[in-house]
Amino acid sequence: MAIHSLNTVSTAHKTKNRLVTRYLPFLKWLVHYRREDLVGDILAGVIVAIMLVPQGMAYALLAGLPPEIGLYASIVPLIIYGLLGTSRTLAVGPVAIVSLLVATGVGTLAESGSGEYVRLAITLAFLVGIIQFLMGVVRLGFLVNFLSHPVLAGFTSAAAIVIGFSQLKHLLGLAIPSTEAFYELVLYAATNIMGSNPVTVAIGLGSIAVLFYFKNYLGNQLKLLGLSEAIVVPVSRSGPLVVVVLGTLLVWGLGLDSRANVSIVGDVPAGLPPLSLPYFDLSLWEVLLPTALAISFVGYMESISVAKSLASKRREKVEANQELIALGAANFGATFTGGYPVTGGFSRSVVNFAAGANTGLASMITALLIGLTVIFLTPLFYFLPRAVLAAIIMVAVFGLIDIKTLKHVWRYNKADAASMIVTFGAVLAVGIETGILIGAAAAILLFIWRTSRPHMAIVGRVGKSETYRNVLRHDVKTCPHVLTMRVDESLYFANTKYLEDTVLHIVADRPEVKHLVLVGSAINFIDSSALETLESLIKELHDAGVAFHMSDIKGPVMDRLKSIGFVDEIGVDHIYLSVHEAMETLGCT
Amino acid sequence: MAIHSLNTVSTAHKTKNRLVTRYLPFLKWLVHYRREDLVGDILAGVIVAIMLVPQGMAYALLAGLPPEIGLYASIVPLIIYGLLGTSRTLAVGPVAIVSLLVATGVGTLAESGSGEYVRLAITLAFLVGIIQFLMGVVRLGFLVNFLSHPVLAGFTSAAAIVIGFSQLKHLLGLAIPSTEAFYELVLYAATNIMGSNPVTVAIGLGSIAVLFYFKNYLGNQLKLLGLSEAIVVPVSRSGPLVVVVLGTLLVWGLGLDSRANVSIVGDVPAGLPPLSLPYFDLSLWEVLLPTALAISFVGYMESISVAKSLASKRREKVEANQELIALGAANFGATFTGGYPVTGGFSRSVVNFAAGANTGLASMITALLIGLTVIFLTPLFYFLPRAVLAAIIMVAVFGLIDIKTLKHVWRYNKADAASMIVTFGAVLAVGIETGILIGAAAAILLFIWRTSRPHMAIVGRVGKSETYRNVLRHDVKTCPHVLTMRVDESLYFANTKYLEDTVLHIVADRPEVKHLVLVGSAINFIDSSALETLESLIKELHDAGVAFHMSDIKGPVMDRLKSIGFVDEIGVDHIYLSVHEAMETLGCT
Repeated sequence: MAIHSLNTVSTAHKTKNRLVTRYLPFLKWLVHYRREDLVGDILAGVIVAIMLVPQGMAYALLAGLPPEIGLYASIVPLIIYGLLGTSRTLAVGPVAIVSLLVATGVGTLAESGSGEYVRLAITLAFLVGIIQFLMGVVRLGFLVNFLSHPVLAGFTSAAAIVIGFSQLKHLLGLAIPSTEAFYELVLYAATNIMGSNPVTVAIGLGSIAVLFYFKNYLGNQLKLLGLSEAIVVPVSRSGPLVVVVLGTLLVWGLGLDSRANVSIVGDVPAGLPPLSLPYFDLSLWEVLLPTALAISFVGYMESISVAKSLASKRREKVEANQELIALGAANFGATFTGGYPVTGGFSRSVVNFAAGANTGLASMITALLIGLTVIFLTPLFYFLPRAVLAAIIMVAVFGLIDIKTLKHVWRYNKADAASMIVTFGAVLAVGIETGILIGAAAAILLFIWRTSRPHMAIVGRVGKSETYRNVLRHDVKTCPHVLTMRVDESLYFANTKYLEDTVLHIVADRPEVKHLVLVGSAINFIDSSALETLESLIKELHDAGVAFHMSDIKGPVMDRLKSIGFVDEIGVDHIYLSVHEAMETLGCT
Repeated sequence: MAIHSLNTVSTAHKTKNRLVTRYLPFLKWLVHYRREDLVGDILAGVIVAIMLVPQGMAYALLAGLPPEIGLYASIVPLIIYGLLGTSRTLAVGPVAIVSLLVATGVGTLAESGSGEYVRLAITLAFLVGIIQFLMGVVRLGFLVNFLSHPVLAGFTSAAAIVIGFSQLKHLLGLAIPSTEAFYELVLYAATNIMGSNPVTVAIGLGSIAVLFYFKNYLGNQLKLLGLSEAIVVPVSRSGPLVVVVLGTLLVWGLGLDSRANVSIVGDVPAGLPPLSLPYFDLSLWEVLLPTALAISFVGYMESISVAKSLASKRREKVEANQELIALGAANFGATFTGGYPVTGGFSRSVVNFAAGANTGLASMITALLIGLTVIFLTPLFYFLPRAVLAAIIMVAVFGLIDIKTLKHVWRYNKADAASMIVTFGAVLAVGIETGILIGAAAAILLFIWRTSRPHMAIVGRVGKSETYRNVLRHDVKTCPHVLTMRVDESLYFANTKYLEDTVLHIVADRPEVKHLVLVGSAINFIDSSALETLESLIKELHDAGVAFHMSDIKGPVMDRLKSIGFVDEIGVDHIYLSVHEAMETLGCT
């Protein structure tokens, strides 16, 4: 109560002063823009564009879309986010997991790559825009907290594996029938591996080797040569560009597309994105809704985590609800300019930050460069082998497989580790959308399970203090005829029977006990099921000749108990402010 | 920890002494059986049998089964429960809600009343037997606690309405097409009411009037005449028998079945139940599983609540897991003797208790009488009008509509009332099985929601004591440079961001604060998501020039924090046993 009102006052005060900048955060950096910010913004904008061109095309192919859609989704959404987003360094655009979700959601409704398929993806962007925008406006940003870290980590790792293996067909030049089940895909690839196209495999594996070298070794080697960060960062991040150029030259020069049947990207239309519209069809929206919800939540989670972690490094703040509004608006941008769902990407944002982006201008420069690319450079992508794009995706998602978190969580808390493993397994076994739902449900049920068997402690007095702690952990004084018992959980339907049974067992074993003091310091609420059980427990104790007392009942709990007449029932003189007060009254000090 | 081990010792000790009686509880009453118990047992057995004959047939019809199946389910299962059950007064047999669940689960698979339909119901009894028996053996009885009282109350009220309206077709003599949706049924009945059979309606409404009179007025009138309980109870409970006899005589005497087209029960086969077998077909079991789970849970809940409430009136104990074993075995009994799923019924158990049942022998006497009925009396039911059975069902379930609980819960706790209303609405809107699932999910989500925005209080010292309470509720002393803050909830994924935001806001508003003491008296665990957030919060506070301290950390929480190195990170000297110790150390007393 107290703190809520304090908060509200302070927030209301601040809000008044920045109502304009709250909804248009770019004004904050625009009015104070300094010339020295410009160098970082331009450099970062260029580097991210260099990463984004091949990634955008690759992720579009992962989503089952023509490659240019990935580029279209990398122009207007970036400008909109630059204007509305509260993070100054988040790089918005197509990302791997969202692309996979698009493929799963639209894959069963239309043929991959067809005009209908594209328009369904556009419709999905529209729905995601509505969901995220509305969630931001009605301030539901907190809802995403219901996805715990372990569940997200398990989901991301499993999705990375699914994405990686989905690229096998391009990497091997093998026509793998599309399937929902992960293990069928692996099985098919394993049994048909002899049917691979050897030239395609060579290009793919070569690209992977180059990308790994750029990602993991080149940067350090350049640093050892004494080169400055301003050169090391862009060079070491240009791996995707290098494999794209090399792969394209190779296929073009040796005519591998016709001579060795290497699959290539082919015609990519030139020119700015066309104006596009989603389907306005309620029954279709209903079909797409689960996918749209999954993209909205998962996309937002990825985006807000990287935005927060980067912002905290520079003491900047991101606002959860404004972020939802900005991402929603970015998805509207994607909808009307031929794109597909976008969000803030992890790796590109980190690069943007490291390359020195200072404001949202960096994003806009990236968008400008992608715009120039689609106008002038698309003919160059004709001979680009698909195996190269597959290699780019595989190397990008490989880093998402997160064994470290599992180890850490396992050591700290087995229940959290269990929800991580369940999510991981469920995503691989039953697919990514149902998988994350199962994981979220598992985390909630484990929480209920944990609170359903609360820790309870008999407490005694520590020395001459007024502190009362667990008799088994501390050297404390107790009193034979008074049992002081602390229940370490709120009392509610899932644990109320457990409490009753435990208390009755303990009292039955101690015939000398005449008074039971229930210490409520950890009881944050008592629901109506628990209240009923408590009433019957008190009656049962009474019949056994044990009087019931309570201490340390919190204000909000007490208010409720008073309102229903419970306090009058057990007698207001049986309720004490502290254990010590109870013990003094019962003659135990 | 402490209490678990204490319990285990005492339970193990007791268990040894009563291992035999634990699994065969009837031995307890059999070896001490006194002659004076016999009168009560016989009287109660007879009265329950008188109720059970019409109820058994009525509930079988409600389940879509031939009437004799209800009688078959009232013989062997009662004997088995009498041997294995821990309640001495529970009356097992067909009940309304389980019958409705059978109708819903089997109704879509076979034609009502057909041989296949009967065998599917028998298979359902078999699955329920397996589920309940196994749950009892592996001691999962506590699982049913996950259904909260408000959810159950909402479910029961809505199911009573669904059951009541499902009988309209018999009461009106109107062919209402069977439908899942409750409102369709009501709509059809309302628009076609002119097509009712007037004689049937008269018999039905007349029966309802007689039943109401017996149930609500006759008992008091007899008492006013000075008659003893031993006469009042059986007479006032014989309403169903009276309407059955009167209705049958009326139809037979006036030939209403042929002359006025009144629907009658017709041929009921004579003789003891045949030996029957369930289908052994895994894919069919999979189809029936959701219904079997619903019956197992809901049936057990109804049974255990009435068993517990009756047992506590006589200081007897029922054992949750043994009850599951006994009910499971009773359902096996139903499976192999032509019955359908059974459980302990509410109203019959209350009657059994009130009529003086002392031991499980009462149940066995009831079974014997039902056995004699199926051997000798079935020809008498030929002319029994179905409208009479419908009236019996309607009056029986009317008492289950529970407005009182809703009022009480509403006054005490709006969230509990919300879950009750959601369950009620969901059962009426989408059907009883999905409805109860939605209700259970709503209760869990409301719990998560509640814990996701924990109450927090800034605390200060009460007088000269060592007690620290909310500054807004008590007259306490605080200290400007030390902020002592109590968080009234365990820290876990759903509330961790809320905690971080709130703490940072409060500290930002108080530049004079140099130390923050997080009071952990209500923190019962810290999951790995919360640990991560806590680490970043400490860093942020440090940057703002605020030192972080903790007090009142419980043993189990402390163990975890130590294991992961967190305690070393923040410094063991920043953790205090009590708020008072922290305040003394920080120079605030």
